[in-house]
Amino acid sequence: MLELPPVASLKGKSITSAEQFSRADIYALIHLASAMQRKIDAGEVLNLLQGRIMTPLFFEDSSRTFSSFCAAMIRLGGSVVNFKVEASSINKGETLADTIRTLDSYSDVLVMRHPRQDAIEEALSVAQHPILNAGNGAGEHPTQALLDTLTIHSELGSVDGITIALIGDLKMGRTVHSLLKLLVRNFSIKCVFLVAPDALQMPQDVLEPLQHEIATKGVIIHRTHALTDEVMQKSDVLYTTRLQKERFMASTSDDAAALQSFAAKADITIDAARMRLAKEKMIVMHPLPRNDELSTTVDADPRAAYFRQMRYGMFMRMAILWSVLA
Amino acid sequence: MLELPPVASLKGKSITSAEQFSRADIYALIHLASAMQRKIDAGEVLNLLQGRIMTPLFFEDSSRTFSSFCAAMIRLGGSVVNFKVEASSINKGETLADTIRTLDSYSDVLVMRHPRQDAIEEALSVAQHPILNAGNGAGEHPTQALLDTLTIHSELGSVDGITIALIGDLKMGRTVHSLLKLLVRNFSIKCVFLVAPDALQMPQDVLEPLQHEIATKGVIIHRTHALTDEVMQKSDVLYTTRLQKERFMASTSDDAAALQSFAAKADITIDAARMRLAKEKMIVMHPLPRNDELSTTVDADPRAAYFRQMRYGMFMRMAILWSVLA
Amino acid sequence: MLELPPVASLKGKSITSAEQFSRADIYALIHLASAMQRKIDAGEVLNLLQGRIMTPLFFEDSSRTFSSFCAAMIRLGGSVVNFKVEASSINKGETLADTIRTLDSYSDVLVMRHPRQDAIEEALSVAQHPILNAGNGAGEHPTQALLDTLTIHSELGSVDGITIALIGDLKMGRTVHSLLKLLVRNFSIKCVFLVAPDALQMPQDVLEPLQHEIATKGVIIHRTHALTDEVMQKSDVLYTTRLQKERFMASTSDDAAALQSFAAKADITIDAARMRLAKEKMIVMHPLPRNDELSTTVDADPRAAYFRQMRYGMFMRMAILWSVLA
Repeated sequence: MLELPPVASLKGKSITSAEQFSRADIYALIHLASAMQRKIDAGEVLNLLQGRIMTPLFFEDSSRTFSSFCAAMIRLGGSVVNFKVEASSINKGETLADTIRTLDSYSDVLVMRHPRQDAIEEALSVAQHPILNAGNGAGEHPTQALLDTLTIHSELGSVDGITIALIGDLKMGRTVHSLLKLLVRNFSIKCVFLVAPDALQMPQDVLEPLQHEIATKGVIIHRTHALTDEVMQKSDVLYTTRLQKERFMASTSDDAAALQSFAAKADITIDAARMRLAKEKMIVMHPLPRNDELSTTVDADPRAAYFRQMRYGMFMRMAILWSVLA
Repeated sequence: MLELPPVASLKGKSITSAEQFSRADIYALIHLASAMQRKIDAGEVLNLLQGRIMTPLFFEDSSRTFSSFCAAMIRLGGSVVNFKVEASSINKGETLADTIRTLDSYSDVLVMRHPRQDAIEEALSVAQHPILNAGNGAGEHPTQALLDTLTIHSELGSVDGITIALIGDLKMGRTVHSLLKLLVRNFSIKCVFLVAPDALQMPQDVLEPLQHEIATKGVIIHRTHALTDEVMQKSDVLYTTRLQKERFMASTSDDAAALQSFAAKADITIDAARMRLAKEKMIVMHPLPRNDELSTTVDADPRAAYFRQMRYGMFMRMAILWSVLA
Repeated sequence: MLELPPVASLKGKSITSAEQFSRADIYALIHLASAMQRKIDAGEVLNLLQGRIMTPLFFEDSSRTFSSFCAAMIRLGGSVVNFKVEASSINKGETLADTIRTLDSYSDVLVMRHPRQDAIEEALSVAQHPILNAGNGAGEHPTQALLDTLTIHSELGSVDGITIALIGDLKMGRTVHSLLKLLVRNFSIKCVFLVAPDALQMPQDVLEPLQHEIATKGVIIHRTHALTDEVMQKSDVLYTTRLQKERFMASTSDDAAALQSFAAKADITIDAARMRLAKEKMIVMHPLPRNDELSTTVDADPRAAYFRQMRYGMFMRMAILWSVLA
């Protein structure tokens, strides 16, 4: 039905971290996602996962991740059980472990988003079916990193050799954590600009384990506080992110300073004026939702890839679901 | 599979207003809906929209519209993504435009209900797939007008020549706005009773554009404050509606008077006693939900068509979805 | 497709009480559920209910009942309309009767959970399609009793002759009401321990109608306040339940005493230490969710059947749905 097989190394596996994918895995997923896109765009119906059930378990708000996982499962011929956290036995005091065991009893795969970073490990310890991490606190968002890589590959033709700027809330933004890991480990990235105020910079526990690869591959890492002309001019990918306000709630007063400095974010806002500095062949990405850091004046720019990025997400999640469940 | 084709003029189109349908469109939809009803009642499974995805996006409460659209899509072999406004990135500040773009990336058709009248235009301006208006504030509810017309046609045998009373909250009730437009423009309506206190009467911006047709076709328009014996005796269709309390919240003190006069609504309540005045062949309709304006003492009356009206809704929405997506 | 037929006596029937099933019905459902489990475990896709729609209508929180009914419908090839009570016209004052009529218009079967005991009768009086009672206040939970019986049969090889202890909130726990009725009426139960403080004991209106059968069949009924060594040593099934806190809210001050005595529930907690007293071949069951009355120290014990019990639930609900809708 499809000219390509599922990615064998993912079969029956949970997806927890961007660290678990090899370069070969990533390319296999990219090619599979693209093949699926061609089928869907041609109006074909894929019945690869008929009778299989995915249950999403979202303890945090979601538009893209939730909807694209559901659409992906359905477009593969599978089905979704619409479990509702807010109308569940969690209100009667049920633990996460027991909730996972419950849904795991009825489903072939779970997709979980949770505000606690260690929730994914807790879930894995009791589940018998694969669990796909759709965001664990300020931790990781591995399927986002995969769809981001698919976006870069599809839009620019290649991931190797790029200069990428990660902009905004690099401290709490789990998508940039996962993306940085995936790119540095598996590709030859030329340069990474980390554009954020000090208090929102990329955490050491993300960078530390990458040091060896950064050194070996000669990846240039540049920290800046503002979206300088140099960053605008040299970047092949501007990857900007929203301030993760919801993660600062339970935080210390240091973060109040971070919030304040972020408020002075005129320095990192991407708008049509700033885009005049950018290369002709480059893309602007954003995991969305956006607040003010990405102006709607950029939307009509053909280099604005963030809406296309959403759609790549559905196809990447189709490739992942099929590979895990095939 | 079905003896009738989809309605070609709707193919790939959004449904925004009752004004967009011609008499030929309406009859084609009525016949298609009836054909679908025959199939479903015979226990047949229609697989006309296999692999296609509908995403409902409801910013206001709904029982009938939401559930019947979902059931319609499923009975056509299609699927539904259960996007949840209250658990979405809208909570993180995402705009309506970006939310629409998101769901539009994964879906073949969106169904939207929104408290703002201009939300439908905003949605249309960014979507690439059809959007079906399931109610835009006090504006329109075009698929309701179509199912209402199907109900009249099926129950009375004809729409032309009828006398219809629109009763209750004609100011904020979007279903009566859409229905009046659809009927006056496409059929030979004999007489329309507009039964409401002054403060809740049919708005001029609904009536104004219909003046030419009303005059040309000689439609008699009667405004009354109460459900008089004449209205009860002459009407082929009594179409009553609920006070749209939720739309008065943000309104002026003029509306307080409207609410008060509505409170004296004994004058417009339909009950078994009043039904003794009505013709033998006539129907009572209500878009539901009802409050006190429609007594449960009417439920057992064979002329009470409001429960059958709900089921006609599913078949009309099947006809619409298939025509739009075929 | 399946080696067994649907249970003919359930065809088109609503499921309201554990009292409606004969021993023959129960065994037929048990065998059907087991046959379905074999198919699903073998990876087969059942397309027995293609094009059929189930609508759940849950006025109380649920994890297991909701999700397993949805998964059951989907694994039979059917579909689910995700009606949301909290986003429905109930917020506009719609009655339960009108809400049922609405969903009944679009669906082939409804599954309802409601805090009021008489809600199920009200629903039945207006619905034209079968309604499956998924819990009516402190009343009944008949499909739970069926899945509990399937669990006992599958785990112990037989239901006749067992000694079972019902432990915890026997007053408000509807699962134990339904289970006791089902077991006493249809099987030869040797002994039932009713383990609860006086204020939470099994209500007389549950026991009274069973008196004849209890006497005729010589079922020994033992009331105790604590989980004594005798109960631990003699029971083939320890069926423990959570305090139904939500049902005490609207209750009298007598219940405050009940709550307090329940607080001294060390006396009924099942933990690994206590399990040393139990038989080698016996099972611990719990409808879940659990609070402190069932310690996680029991989870690894092979006699802990409460997680397997969840999965039996999906297969029993498949057997029920197919029998009702076939």
